[in-house]
Amino acid sequence: MAVIGVDIGGTKALAVRIEDGKVAATERHTLNGSEDLLEAVEKAVASVSDGEPTAVGVGIAGLVDQADRTFVWGPHVAGDRVAVGAELETRFGVPVAVDNDANTALIAELELGVASGYRDVLLVTLGTGIGGAIAVDGEIYRGGGYAGEWGHMRVVADGLLCDCGKRGCWETLASGPALERLAREVLHANPSSSLARSLGDQEVTGYAVVASADHGDETARALVAEVGRAFGQGLADLAAIFDPELIVVGGGLGSVGEGIVGPARRVLADAIHGAAHRIAPTVQVARLGPTAGAVGAALLAAEATNGS
Amino acid sequence: MAVIGVDIGGTKALAVRIEDGKVAATERHTLNGSEDLLEAVEKAVASVSDGEPTAVGVGIAGLVDQADRTFVWGPHVAGDRVAVGAELETRFGVPVAVDNDANTALIAELELGVASGYRDVLLVTLGTGIGGAIAVDGEIYRGGGYAGEWGHMRVVADGLLCDCGKRGCWETLASGPALERLAREVLHANPSSSLARSLGDQEVTGYAVVASADHGDETARALVAEVGRAFGQGLADLAAIFDPELIVVGGGLGSVGEGIVGPARRVLADAIHGAAHRIAPTVQVARLGPTAGAVGAALLAAEATNGS
Repeated sequence: MAVIGVDIGGTKALAVRIEDGKVAATERHTLNGSEDLLEAVEKAVASVSDGEPTAVGVGIAGLVDQADRTFVWGPHVAGDRVAVGAELETRFGVPVAVDNDANTALIAELELGVASGYRDVLLVTLGTGIGGAIAVDGEIYRGGGYAGEWGHMRVVADGLLCDCGKRGCWETLASGPALERLAREVLHANPSSSLARSLGDQEVTGYAVVASADHGDETARALVAEVGRAFGQGLADLAAIFDPELIVVGGGLGSVGEGIVGPARRVLADAIHGAAHRIAPTVQVARLGPTAGAVGAALLAAEATNGS
Repeated sequence: MAVIGVDIGGTKALAVRIEDGKVAATERHTLNGSEDLLEAVEKAVASVSDGEPTAVGVGIAGLVDQADRTFVWGPHVAGDRVAVGAELETRFGVPVAVDNDANTALIAELELGVASGYRDVLLVTLGTGIGGAIAVDGEIYRGGGYAGEWGHMRVVADGLLCDCGKRGCWETLASGPALERLAREVLHANPSSSLARSLGDQEVTGYAVVASADHGDETARALVAEVGRAFGQGLADLAAIFDPELIVVGGGLGSVGEGIVGPARRVLADAIHGAAHRIAPTVQVARLGPTAGAVGAALLAAEATNGS
């Protein structure tokens, strides 16, 4: 009795097979954002399949109509109003649940992760962009369907161009691509910096910069901290807006841990509205790490199946 | 059987007496923000009293611990951890309910105003500052107690100094004082402008600028529209975050109507994340206008009394 969950982001498809409430298999596939969405899911499902699953759940980065099980649009994933649920049900022959990937990640953290026992929780995912999900009194709040898209809060008037077509969105300053941009600026200004030696002939990516920071390069650490501070400023905004008990930091870059979250926590504590008069929300790194979106998609599919 | 509601803002105390579900009396008192909070409430209650009320409700601009009935702190109201509920119950001898003034205003709009029948609603108040309140599935969402303080989202890095002590908060660009500042800049740059003639020897305030706009001064209209656009940009952020059905615009400056809300709606429609792929939330001016906070405070007090 296996359930398969797939998380489709801008740069990866991550699939898990869950058996008896435990993750029995995990596969990660690199994407470039231009792949056919349904084929990417099919390939990911096949990579962890061990016989026919009882249900499939799909979490997708972008605007998802969860009730209609349709991927509406997203700046990092190709496709426009793709009827993912109906299409995949025909292909797989089993029930398919579809939701925003941040919602599925929060479902996983509420059921199995750091948010267990909390009621008012924000999940803020930091990766290719910033996504998020909201739990009010323990239940996912979706608003009209698209709540939690705070990566596109405008934090800089006439700021950097965002993938969404607007300027100055939060994720232009806090994301893997933002870290990559900062690193390229340093390398351009100072081609013989320690960062250049540390990166060697690797491609300059956010992950490579994080690896350099982990290996002790001070410049890389400073760049990671700068992204962490930009991340923390937005968390302070969200804390003023929601006053949640807990903020869970997820996503590939969020899972880096203290290098990002430490500076973010310090900015949050200082920048939150009324800082001297209140306790800032707890900020914790997601326990399920980069697999949370896929695990939660599987949990959502299992729940939908049990409920039917 | 009268219930009295009082709304304490940065520049006014507004009291209403409600009898048989109808507003029987309204009084507005000008404040300068340095008055003793409890005395200001007492004076406001006395101004609408007609015999002893059955309960008193107080809405206050700032951080309010609704469960403890304590005013914690606010940049526009004097006092720090004032046990408003307990203190006033001793003075009045009747039950006293206390909440943030935006929460009470949203209660009024949900029960008697434009939000009747809606479930996921934001109230955004535009006045001395920006406050707000959140309804999820028809109920006020307070988070840890202080949710809805989005006036202190940082929209400009190293921006103008806010009354809260931080820089670049949304309300530094969208508020009565922001409108006043814009007008003073125009008057300083061009002392013989039409705005100077229109204002005459009135004190330069946001309200005076609004009055000049109403009387047809084009410069005043342009300044009001500029504040409306800054307001709309923040509404777009909140729409991306909450995806609500309805945004209700309240507060003294918000109640001005289309001069503010028209430009705000246009910016919202354009700036919302995924604008081409979704319908922007409806934006409506609060029906109860500047009395909403006081009316909702009275409704909250009546509810608390009925429930006890």
